[in-house]
Amino acid sequence: MKSSYTLLSQSSRCAARAGEIRTLHGTIQTPVFMPVGTQATVKGMTPENLLAIGAQIILANTYHLFLRPGHTLIQQFGGLHKFMNWDGPILTDSGGFQIYSLKELARITEEGATFKSHLDGSTLFLSPEDAVSVQEALGSDIMMCLDTCIPYPASREEASNATALTARWAERCRKAQRPTGQLLFGIVQGGMYPDLRARSVEDMTSIGFDGYALGGLSVGEPSEVMYEMTAQTAALLPYEFPKYVMGVGTPEDLVECVFRGVDMFDCVMPTRNARNGMLFTSRGRLVIKNACYYNDPLPADENCGCYTCRNYSRAYLRHLYMAKEILASLLNTIHNLHYFVNLMKQMRMAISADRFEEFRREFYEMREQEIPTV
Amino acid sequence: MKSSYTLLSQSSRCAARAGEIRTLHGTIQTPVFMPVGTQATVKGMTPENLLAIGAQIILANTYHLFLRPGHTLIQQFGGLHKFMNWDGPILTDSGGFQIYSLKELARITEEGATFKSHLDGSTLFLSPEDAVSVQEALGSDIMMCLDTCIPYPASREEASNATALTARWAERCRKAQRPTGQLLFGIVQGGMYPDLRARSVEDMTSIGFDGYALGGLSVGEPSEVMYEMTAQTAALLPYEFPKYVMGVGTPEDLVECVFRGVDMFDCVMPTRNARNGMLFTSRGRLVIKNACYYNDPLPADENCGCYTCRNYSRAYLRHLYMAKEILASLLNTIHNLHYFVNLMKQMRMAISADRFEEFRREFYEMREQEIPTV
Repeated sequence: MKSSYTLLSQSSRCAARAGEIRTLHGTIQTPVFMPVGTQATVKGMTPENLLAIGAQIILANTYHLFLRPGHTLIQQFGGLHKFMNWDGPILTDSGGFQIYSLKELARITEEGATFKSHLDGSTLFLSPEDAVSVQEALGSDIMMCLDTCIPYPASREEASNATALTARWAERCRKAQRPTGQLLFGIVQGGMYPDLRARSVEDMTSIGFDGYALGGLSVGEPSEVMYEMTAQTAALLPYEFPKYVMGVGTPEDLVECVFRGVDMFDCVMPTRNARNGMLFTSRGRLVIKNACYYNDPLPADENCGCYTCRNYSRAYLRHLYMAKEILASLLNTIHNLHYFVNLMKQMRMAISADRFEEFRREFYEMREQEIPTV
Repeated sequence: MKSSYTLLSQSSRCAARAGEIRTLHGTIQTPVFMPVGTQATVKGMTPENLLAIGAQIILANTYHLFLRPGHTLIQQFGGLHKFMNWDGPILTDSGGFQIYSLKELARITEEGATFKSHLDGSTLFLSPEDAVSVQEALGSDIMMCLDTCIPYPASREEASNATALTARWAERCRKAQRPTGQLLFGIVQGGMYPDLRARSVEDMTSIGFDGYALGGLSVGEPSEVMYEMTAQTAALLPYEFPKYVMGVGTPEDLVECVFRGVDMFDCVMPTRNARNGMLFTSRGRLVIKNACYYNDPLPADENCGCYTCRNYSRAYLRHLYMAKEILASLLNTIHNLHYFVNLMKQMRMAISADRFEEFRREFYEMREQEIPTV
């Protein structure tokens, strides 16, 4: 099949690579970070805010939108893009991870997932075919197959069974797909067992998808294990398709996973931490409520060019946070998302210049320095 | 003294008038509505959002900023404008109304107001001189005298004593003022007693201020009483100075008070109600959580040109509100403030064309129509 991905640069001394993905709503430069817009809004951000920080694509959650306001309503409104006033690409997850997170409130069978709504406790059912048709109704640019996420730790048998079921579901997803022009990605599972990961790569690539996600990572395993699984799985996946690590991660995780060949990321960390007053900076994390920022006239990050850093002092950001003002969430979210999106841009530039390893070294050197204050 | 106010148009058949006020941070067209930015931020709005909806001047609260982060800190940062990144005019209230609202937590003596902080219970003191010097430190364009607000109902004696004390405090405020170019407004009290209001007007005008506020209104009295007090007091005040009704009000109140000669208003209603999902429209109030808006593709107000109405359906606004998303507060606040600010603009245009009475009639006719839905 023809790929929607084009490889533009391959690092000569590591797996890091730059490329682009063509979607119905435009082309995405990779590696890319996707801000999370769970309920058809990236918390606290207008679409214009997202464009201003350089977001290329956002993620929305099938599970949440299926429950509220419902995919049928969104379809009536011409799809998610029109409903939420975002004209750029959107990736929707399948709901697999959310159903996994429901734990005892969900039951997985061959047929699909039965689960209780976290909103009203009603019992709902989602089959692999449903997951695709819901995402078709939402009209996202990139759809994800319904998968079964594997907890950490998990026995080999548990991991093996879930991986096999994910493969059977993936096949059903591919079959259910209608020719809408939306891309469909398969999800590689396998837990922390390298041979099961390899098996899952084989399952997925033999079905054939428009891209491949590494699922079931960042579920509690040590970072080194996550990096190892990522490196191994990414290396097995065909280079002609985008590779996406789901739900990852910290700035360090992004650098390490790009180093290992990953193209796409999503994570709630920049948005959630922003609302909790934690700012990501080029020198590490800054907790804005700390007393030392009371009268600090510096911007959150002196190396940052975002709207927040161009216009507001740490003292003002601290005041807003202490006073529980909505603007605190807004300004902190703008800064954190800009940091993540800009970090990816720097990585793309480093890859294009074939100096990703130098970039990675400088990234860590910078973080060893203290955050300067007045 | 030279007035900072210029009368531009006077209605021929009612007291409504249009003019402008010159301040250190620019000229304001009146009648004007001032969005409330209690804690050095209009809740949920960036300065750019405020400019986009056409806000000319905002209000900040001396009491809140005195407590947190403190006027000394704000002065270190070059004043409130720089601290909060708003370059337009700012009016600061004196703290009189907030201290009044503290009820048993505050004690008024000849010297000033002793009160307990709502943040940490510490005992604080604010004299009329302090109120001025705090506002000078904040660097607002328009400062208000410290006054003693009169509850409703109040005995004649109570009202008389408070009015006399307000006059003595006003004199101390004027004396304490330094030549910073900031304007200082006196506050007319008098409760709901016309002769005490007249006496207070005499007290204030004989001291001489840059503008005059009508204080102690909208404190529980019926609308008709408020309108009567407003009409009587506004008529007694000299036409060469701006007239400001503090803490008022609903769209109907704004129209009625402009009709009676008022130039300036502030109220938390558009911002607070926005966060509670109540939208002001040309046809009256719309409660966005109502089930009828579930699949309504219309904008909040079909006659509105704000960012929210240009880009989002009632169905999306309802979804955001039900899902408790921050964007609900943002979009609703943009709409409500735009409604208030635009209502004032329409009134200014009607006054300039000497058709304010027609405007007022059409305003009420429009509100008798039902809000159309699909």
